[in-house]
Amino acid sequence: MELTQAILKRRSIRKFTDYVVTDAEIAELLEAARWAPSWANTQCCEFIVVRDRGLIEKITAAYSEFNPARKCSLAASALIIGCAHSKKAGVKEGGWATKFSSWYMFDLGLAVQTICLRAHELGLGTVIVGLMNHDICKNLLDLPEDYEVVVSIPIGKPAVEAKEGPARRAVAEFTHLDRFGNPFMS
Amino acid sequence: MELTQAILKRRSIRKFTDYVVTDAEIAELLEAARWAPSWANTQCCEFIVVRDRGLIEKITAAYSEFNPARKCSLAASALIIGCAHSKKAGVKEGGWATKFSSWYMFDLGLAVQTICLRAHELGLGTVIVGLMNHDICKNLLDLPEDYEVVVSIPIGKPAVEAKEGPARRAVAEFTHLDRFGNPFMS
Repeated sequence: MELTQAILKRRSIRKFTDYVVTDAEIAELLEAARWAPSWANTQCCEFIVVRDRGLIEKITAAYSEFNPARKCSLAASALIIGCAHSKKAGVKEGGWATKFSSWYMFDLGLAVQTICLRAHELGLGTVIVGLMNHDICKNLLDLPEDYEVVVSIPIGKPAVEAKEGPARRAVAEFTHLDRFGNPFMS
Repeated sequence: MELTQAILKRRSIRKFTDYVVTDAEIAELLEAARWAPSWANTQCCEFIVVRDRGLIEKITAAYSEFNPARKCSLAASALIIGCAHSKKAGVKEGGWATKFSSWYMFDLGLAVQTICLRAHELGLGTVIVGLMNHDICKNLLDLPEDYEVVVSIPIGKPAVEAKEGPARRAVAEFTHLDRFGNPFMS
């Protein structure tokens, strides 16, 4: 698939068929994630593939009750849990190298978008769930202390045609030239 | 370009030719970023295209003296500064919806990887610079209080063939099945 088509046509998918995503497909997604860049190549991202039915139920129960992805997560044949070591990225000589202590969030974002684009190419739908009780999930997944669960990504074959997707701001609305508020394209 | 080729072949590029990146090319990158997903579609990312020569010099001066991207940044015809509103993503009813207060870092990561992949497709090289004095840059770019500068992305035509890139962990090293430490692929 053309890159631009993947970027423009990827949507958050919250309704899956009963197709069981294969380990080979998931391996393709993780191979893609592997090539995302990271802070000084520290590669802080970790991914937990959840297949166990009981565990999928418990993780989904830790989502906010308002999360619109609950139903598809519960029915999914796999979740990919995006985790990260929290003290590798953004560190220099044992301390934070900048004012930010959450570079792992940025690096995980780089990797997760790579997964979602590659899934789209494989005909798989994804939705990124962040609204959950992260400590419950961290405990369920036996994460060591310095690691964090950040997102859950239910995955499956889309049951419906992808829609237009939610409206986006025009490029001119989030783009500036040289200084904030100075239009780049006028 | 095929998506998978872009994912596998994108590299951090720190040596550019003297080609002047066009506004039309930069607009393509920002259009791509526009389609990255975001927390509840809050679209917190903002991008400042820096063309002013004096400003490029001042921003580059705010990088760490150890940053290997200083030279290419100074010579670049454009920097794209990745910024974000810090209090849109991850918020619910006026407060943080989860234990994390830096969802803007994650959402910016989603958008920045999209930019870097699209740039690669256009024959442009990028490098993501995070090691800098962010508050100096925030001030130089007139960012309002609730916004943060996170990364600078010098951009240009690669002056050299892309190399293999730094070694990556094998997929099995960062992937787990159901629980941390349990191999997904054995």
